[in-house]
Amino acid sequence: MIPHLTTALNGPLLDLEQRMLDAQPAIEHWFRLQWIERTVPFYASVDLRNSGFKLAPVDTNLFPGGFNNLNPDFLPLCVHAAQSAIEKICPEARGVLLIPENHTRNLFYLQNVAQLALILKRAGLNVRIGSLLPEISQPTRLALPNGSTLTLEPLQRRNNRLVLENFDPCVVLLNNDLSAGVPEILKNLEQTTLPPLAAGWTSRRKSQHFRAYDQVAAEFCQLLDIDPWLINPYFASCGQVDFKQSESEECLAYHVETILQKMRVKYAEYNVKDTPFVIVKADAGTYGMGIMTVKDASEIRGLNRKQRNKMAVVKEGMHVSDVLVQEGVYTFESINDAVAEPVVYMMDHFVVGGFYRVHTGRAVDENLNAPGMHFVPLAFDTSCILPNPDCAPDDTPNRFYAYAVVARIALLAAALELEAMEA
Amino acid sequence: MIPHLTTALNGPLLDLEQRMLDAQPAIEHWFRLQWIERTVPFYASVDLRNSGFKLAPVDTNLFPGGFNNLNPDFLPLCVHAAQSAIEKICPEARGVLLIPENHTRNLFYLQNVAQLALILKRAGLNVRIGSLLPEISQPTRLALPNGSTLTLEPLQRRNNRLVLENFDPCVVLLNNDLSAGVPEILKNLEQTTLPPLAAGWTSRRKSQHFRAYDQVAAEFCQLLDIDPWLINPYFASCGQVDFKQSESEECLAYHVETILQKMRVKYAEYNVKDTPFVIVKADAGTYGMGIMTVKDASEIRGLNRKQRNKMAVVKEGMHVSDVLVQEGVYTFESINDAVAEPVVYMMDHFVVGGFYRVHTGRAVDENLNAPGMHFVPLAFDTSCILPNPDCAPDDTPNRFYAYAVVARIALLAAALELEAMEA
Repeated sequence: MIPHLTTALNGPLLDLEQRMLDAQPAIEHWFRLQWIERTVPFYASVDLRNSGFKLAPVDTNLFPGGFNNLNPDFLPLCVHAAQSAIEKICPEARGVLLIPENHTRNLFYLQNVAQLALILKRAGLNVRIGSLLPEISQPTRLALPNGSTLTLEPLQRRNNRLVLENFDPCVVLLNNDLSAGVPEILKNLEQTTLPPLAAGWTSRRKSQHFRAYDQVAAEFCQLLDIDPWLINPYFASCGQVDFKQSESEECLAYHVETILQKMRVKYAEYNVKDTPFVIVKADAGTYGMGIMTVKDASEIRGLNRKQRNKMAVVKEGMHVSDVLVQEGVYTFESINDAVAEPVVYMMDHFVVGGFYRVHTGRAVDENLNAPGMHFVPLAFDTSCILPNPDCAPDDTPNRFYAYAVVARIALLAAALELEAMEA
Repeated sequence: MIPHLTTALNGPLLDLEQRMLDAQPAIEHWFRLQWIERTVPFYASVDLRNSGFKLAPVDTNLFPGGFNNLNPDFLPLCVHAAQSAIEKICPEARGVLLIPENHTRNLFYLQNVAQLALILKRAGLNVRIGSLLPEISQPTRLALPNGSTLTLEPLQRRNNRLVLENFDPCVVLLNNDLSAGVPEILKNLEQTTLPPLAAGWTSRRKSQHFRAYDQVAAEFCQLLDIDPWLINPYFASCGQVDFKQSESEECLAYHVETILQKMRVKYAEYNVKDTPFVIVKADAGTYGMGIMTVKDASEIRGLNRKQRNKMAVVKEGMHVSDVLVQEGVYTFESINDAVAEPVVYMMDHFVVGGFYRVHTGRAVDENLNAPGMHFVPLAFDTSCILPNPDCAPDDTPNRFYAYAVVARIALLAAALELEAMEA
């Protein structure tokens, strides 16, 4: 079962998918040369939005959760891809220390950690899980809904190495996005840390990612001779916003208006009848907090206190001052009456699967990465790497291939972004 | 459905599988370091025999047919692996010219060619198929049993490039083992030829492969602290055998007797009650022709004319003078009453699947790679790369993992063998 695309199947997207199919050898050749030049993140997930006239990434996560949401049939693909990543980055590695988020009660998240550990074990690594939580002062076994268990162990620092009791790993793999800052215990490690600490939300900015995406998408679209707007949302960023002081929002209102205006031009060009909207969200951080759908700049100027408070703080109580204004992309994929957006997972440069975020409580112009009882994941039932030119451009394998192409462009952008951080 | 192992499940093999499971991180670490040092063949298949007390390769094919026999669910694994291989060997490649065997009537083989072409296309390459057959003087479309078609095109030589009409490929991929010799049209090409021409049966010798396997298996078994005999069949080779002259067989009879004697010692050591046998076969060539099961050296001395003629010639009328004497490994895997042997497929260094050769007309001490109506392929229903230490060592995923380990040791031997050819 895959979501039904509720727009007419003859818009610009169909043309885009057809071009991707036709150009598949050129696209894969281009990617091959890019992977040789770039250091690809160990893993990533990309949130896409598919409006029928546009297919674009809206968020690239370098500490992906949700591996438990992938189709179990894709496990061998994950294992191959993890082996490739380890081979390139640290072939000598035998032991991996996995550091998860500090949630001990979010069982869905813990199942993701267990699935990641399983992938790495099947890839032939010794894997143990170290927790940053001070209350984990001894090995702690947690029961998971699927009947298995997960053991969290206290981290120990031994000179410049991060270790567990009787376990001196070669690699530290973060599945914690460092929203709360970089803990002292992780600093100046002699072990390889993946992703690098700079990829955490203490220093990473979404706007940097999308600037890199601009560059990569432009090159890709030149290859395909298409309008980059079809895969690239407009964006702008404002620093030094203080949601508690209304005067600091002028910059924000200005960018909202500018992007809406640019969108109106494009909507007219492509004969799109929908109302443009932008998403205003923290430039750093995650988890769908501090996110707002805006259709007019006046909404920004007229925020009430409750809205201001909601925008001012994201995960781990992190204070928001850098704000991203991003072109909103409608999701016109739906299952029954619920809106759906695809999330694509990659390890090394391989697309290993994905799932649809299906949300019954949200509208087509809202962020779906929001917790709550109305969210269900729907695993992709087939692989994203089996485009079939003999089928229609919007047939399942081909729509999935288009996802895989756009997700990998975002992955390349993340590679550029990490290079720039390290430079 | 996987074959039932008809021997008691507590012999040395169970111990071997248990050791492989326990040592999985050490094994994968060892392989990783090997792959970095070696140039791995583009693809290979390995015939294994599982006697319950021994699990060993008996043949390594560098021009594997039978991709059509793999589980269709493994197609994405093949695509990833093909992408890895292309990335390493020839990232600039866009077009691949596939050269199959000269069988236009063997529909099973042609389905293999179609499947290979499909894998390469899904991996993002332009693929066309060039035939060495003189009667293919124009593009010829052949209908396949599954309803698809395959187009063979005449090869053209343009200076030092091999081309088709309007197609100048970057890579020539041989699925033809050159049993009939290396055609002039393939010599001194400026394009990358995979595998190298020297890997064809004109120059390759099974005995060279098994000498390399001796070396690699010894190193592997030292790592696991096991007797190399558990994964390595004894062998010897005789050059200059002329099956039409009975006196030339003394060398052969001597080696048969020597290997049988060494086997008797091992069978006694491991308390194996079966009768040792050896396989006598051409040191070059394929297709199960010219293969004999021998339990006593006297059988060699007493060959009748029909047997001699049968041994003297293999595929493409190639004359046999180099002969391999190889320890026979019983296959104690069976499905219903038919004997079965696993064949494992690899692309780059990834195990991408496999199938069982199931043969109702053959015995446990006979070669199963023989054509005929009694042969059926049975695709592996799960991946070979998901060992599960929580299950018994002989559970399906773990038995498949043992296959994948031994097959990759044979792949490493093939890498050494190709390096030696090129030196």
